Amino acid sequence: MAASMVKSFLVYHLFWWMFLVIAVSSKPPNIIILLADDLGYGDLPSYGHPISEAPVLEQLVAAGLRFTDFYSANPVCSPSRASLLTGRQPPRTGVWPGVFYPQSSGGLPLKEITIAETLKAKNYSTALIGKWHLGVGENNKYMPTNQGFDSYYGIPYTHDMCPCLKCFYPDQPCFYTCNTDVVACPLFKDTVVIEQPTDFTKLSNKYSEEARTWIRKQAQTNQPFFLLYAFHQTHNPMFSNKKFTNATERGPFGNMLLEMDWMVGEMLEELRAHDLEEDTFIFFTSDNGPCLLRPYDGVGNAGLLKCGKGTTYEGGQRVPAIAYWPGHIKPGVTREIASTLDLLPTIANIAQVPLPSVVLDGLDMGNILFNHGRGLRDTLLYYATFPEPDIGVYAVRHKQYKAHYLTSGNSNSGDENHDPDCRPSAGQKPHAPPLLYDLYQDASEQFVVDRKKHLDVYALMYKIKVQNEALMSWAESEINKPSNSSLEPCCNPGCHPRPECCVCKSKFTPAIMKV
Amino acid sequence: MAASMVKSFLVYHLFWWMFLVIAVSSKPPNIIILLADDLGYGDLPSYGHPISEAPVLEQLVAAGLRFTDFYSANPVCSPSRASLLTGRQPPRTGVWPGVFYPQSSGGLPLKEITIAETLKAKNYSTALIGKWHLGVGENNKYMPTNQGFDSYYGIPYTHDMCPCLKCFYPDQPCFYTCNTDVVACPLFKDTVVIEQPTDFTKLSNKYSEEARTWIRKQAQTNQPFFLLYAFHQTHNPMFSNKKFTNATERGPFGNMLLEMDWMVGEMLEELRAHDLEEDTFIFFTSDNGPCLLRPYDGVGNAGLLKCGKGTTYEGGQRVPAIAYWPGHIKPGVTREIASTLDLLPTIANIAQVPLPSVVLDGLDMGNILFNHGRGLRDTLLYYATFPEPDIGVYAVRHKQYKAHYLTSGNSNSGDENHDPDCRPSAGQKPHAPPLLYDLYQDASEQFVVDRKKHLDVYALMYKIKVQNEALMSWAESEINKPSNSSLEPCCNPGCHPRPECCVCKSKFTPAIMKV
Repeated sequence: MAASMVKSFLVYHLFWWMFLVIAVSSKPPNIIILLADDLGYGDLPSYGHPISEAPVLEQLVAAGLRFTDFYSANPVCSPSRASLLTGRQPPRTGVWPGVFYPQSSGGLPLKEITIAETLKAKNYSTALIGKWHLGVGENNKYMPTNQGFDSYYGIPYTHDMCPCLKCFYPDQPCFYTCNTDVVACPLFKDTVVIEQPTDFTKLSNKYSEEARTWIRKQAQTNQPFFLLYAFHQTHNPMFSNKKFTNATERGPFGNMLLEMDWMVGEMLEELRAHDLEEDTFIFFTSDNGPCLLRPYDGVGNAGLLKCGKGTTYEGGQRVPAIAYWPGHIKPGVTREIASTLDLLPTIANIAQVPLPSVVLDGLDMGNILFNHGRGLRDTLLYYATFPEPDIGVYAVRHKQYKAHYLTSGNSNSGDENHDPDCRPSAGQKPHAPPLLYDLYQDASEQFVVDRKKHLDVYALMYKIKVQNEALMSWAESEINKPSNSSLEPCCNPGCHPRPECCVCKSKFTPAIMKV
Repeated sequence: MAASMVKSFLVYHLFWWMFLVIAVSSKPPNIIILLADDLGYGDLPSYGHPISEAPVLEQLVAAGLRFTDFYSANPVCSPSRASLLTGRQPPRTGVWPGVFYPQSSGGLPLKEITIAETLKAKNYSTALIGKWHLGVGENNKYMPTNQGFDSYYGIPYTHDMCPCLKCFYPDQPCFYTCNTDVVACPLFKDTVVIEQPTDFTKLSNKYSEEARTWIRKQAQTNQPFFLLYAFHQTHNPMFSNKKFTNATERGPFGNMLLEMDWMVGEMLEELRAHDLEEDTFIFFTSDNGPCLLRPYDGVGNAGLLKCGKGTTYEGGQRVPAIAYWPGHIKPGVTREIASTLDLLPTIANIAQVPLPSVVLDGLDMGNILFNHGRGLRDTLLYYATFPEPDIGVYAVRHKQYKAHYLTSGNSNSGDENHDPDCRPSAGQKPHAPPLLYDLYQDASEQFVVDRKKHLDVYALMYKIKVQNEALMSWAESEINKPSNSSLEPCCNPGCHPRPECCVCKSKFTPAIMKV
């Protein structure tokens, strides 16, 4: 009897112990995407910048997997972010051409399925901190909290789309001319404007506090979490808090980059405080290449790549990328081709959630990440900043070859760029035959290959282009939907006269800050 | 008596033991300079190249000190090498303008004191393996063995200065058009031509064998040694031995780079075999920026820097540099400004030999190397490929600022360069006021700074320029001395008709090879 009781006791406890093991081991990992803004291929030390400082990101590089051939899905912000979140090319998402503005009536269509929504199948807690730029819309229709994010904290578009006055501690002006005649930059908590204008000299501290507080809260639950941490760094205008104003030799750009690096460090510190580092997959990248305008306050760098933001040359879309997950991803460098389009399927695989039942342009990066092996992607399609259904893709990469069927300079690559091809004055230009480059032998897209020796490659590239274009579907443009200044976010809804009345320095301290 | 004998015995042995300790500890370290040819700032993985492979050099980077702001003394070969060996700017050495040719009658003046000669004060054993390019002259007057090197093994000029036929294993032709109507490429042992034409597909193995054999021989003596290992890699035409033909995705350039990397590895293996690594100061760098001509066979890369070889833009002279000395130099990255001019005083300090009694332009890098501290150099003078006494320096760098008083494109930076400033068609152009760049904020020399805010910098730069020019002395040009085809090195001295008669596939196996 006693033996039987002991046996029952043991079986009972063994049962719970096994249950716990299974419950713990079956909890999918946390996911954090760190998304920089306009950070160029050449802007980090490990990508060759001589003077930049980013000690925390360099730690991730040293202990993680660095990509040499990683691409943002588009050379500008809104379409790139829509594609990152959905795994679908800009034509499918409707987020084309160009970017959303504060008065835009469109947004990322609600029927599009974001990474955040995908992860809800495993009950992930989800948050977006920072820049959104996928529409606000009437009654905040398109805000992150309607796209799978449980919470949002940030400015929902680029911080140069609202008047900027004070950028550097304590009260130094911005060097850059931001948009005027619009409402002051609004800081949102979920769908409420809690500060307007946003104080740029304190913004990073607020984001950082929000990120730490949110992670701390998640650590107290048994839910896995997904955080999209979308920095305003290093987009113009440069700004810095007290700690980073005048912090680096690279000047305002370097200071802003180091401030972002510090934010990453703060976030990591919180993860480590809760022993969550080995349970968290972290991916760092940028939304597009660097802005190469005359540096009133700082200028990004595409390194050895041609041109920058807004163009379909390599400098427009090839960006830094680091995957970090101690104990799961071994340190190293990969030359496999991958894209922000691939984040959704990769994360779905990591979290073991079903893929959305839609056409995806992304491919799982698992073999690259976990085996340092070959990726599934050997082809990349480059859609322009201002794509048109009748024209299709601007360029195609297949393995080491890249064919430009159309090229265009862009204002974001600078009207003083030493390379005339990058300037806005270099208008849309078709190429027949296409300009074919070998990116392995000629990473800087300097020398068109000898056509006679590559006729098979030309033929293959054309086949890839035509096949992919036939499979592409073009959703109605969300960005071309009518604008209306009444849609600009305002801390005093319904006030008059706008935009002046939309000023309430700090409306309230959000509840989350009190945790 | 017995006690006294024991005492005498002990004193005697103690004496010899102390003598030995002093003798061993006072033996200065070995010195190895690894000098690449035309390797650009952006050509190594740690300087941001996405596809290059150089695993051995990357090991040196990981365990050594990598420079971000290291400069060759001149944007082309002969003047750069003369300055590296003497610590003196090209005008002083007489090695200007441009480079030596096989028929040149001039050379580095014998009165110039090379690092090799300087080290003779401590009885260093000295050798040069590889490219010389500081003149052959009548009766081999200017060859390395007359400039402080006990032995020489190599081709005494660039390998495109002689007809090239076979470049890739087993017998694939060269892609590049080399000089014709000159003698075939001569491989020298000391002052004797031992192979003509040189077989490029076997050259690296021969150099490597020579380097290993020579180090092995030194390891058996108590003499310290100095080796200048001057690779032909990665100058056009590309070539590769059996192991490296088709070895990399970057193609012929990548193969040639990886072959050089392998040679460095072989050399290191020999050092390690004799436990000499901690007794040997190794410095790796390049003689100038990359050649950016259309890649018939491969093209170098200046990374984020403007233009390349032959120009005084950053791409012409800022080059990769690594200092490696386990136990003496801590791993890291330094942003201090330094130059190949600084190698002589640095090495003199390391070896504790007196500096030559001449005006030196170099400065000791000791505090950078051994303390990761500030360097002595905050100013750099850029003399053009074709400098003129009446014109003086083309550009001056002081701290983060660089002022271009004159600019010029160069054929080596490519007549198809996307940046028109780099092309040979961009002739010599004076700038008053100079083009002033902030290299920290604008590493790519894209945007002239706001003059009004930098008037003090303009004034300082001009003062530095004028002061330094007043202190410069211009030796008679050695390169402008008359040419004579009879001076071209020949394995059959006095034969006729030249150059055809100067062919003796392999004259003999040099004695050193039998060791």
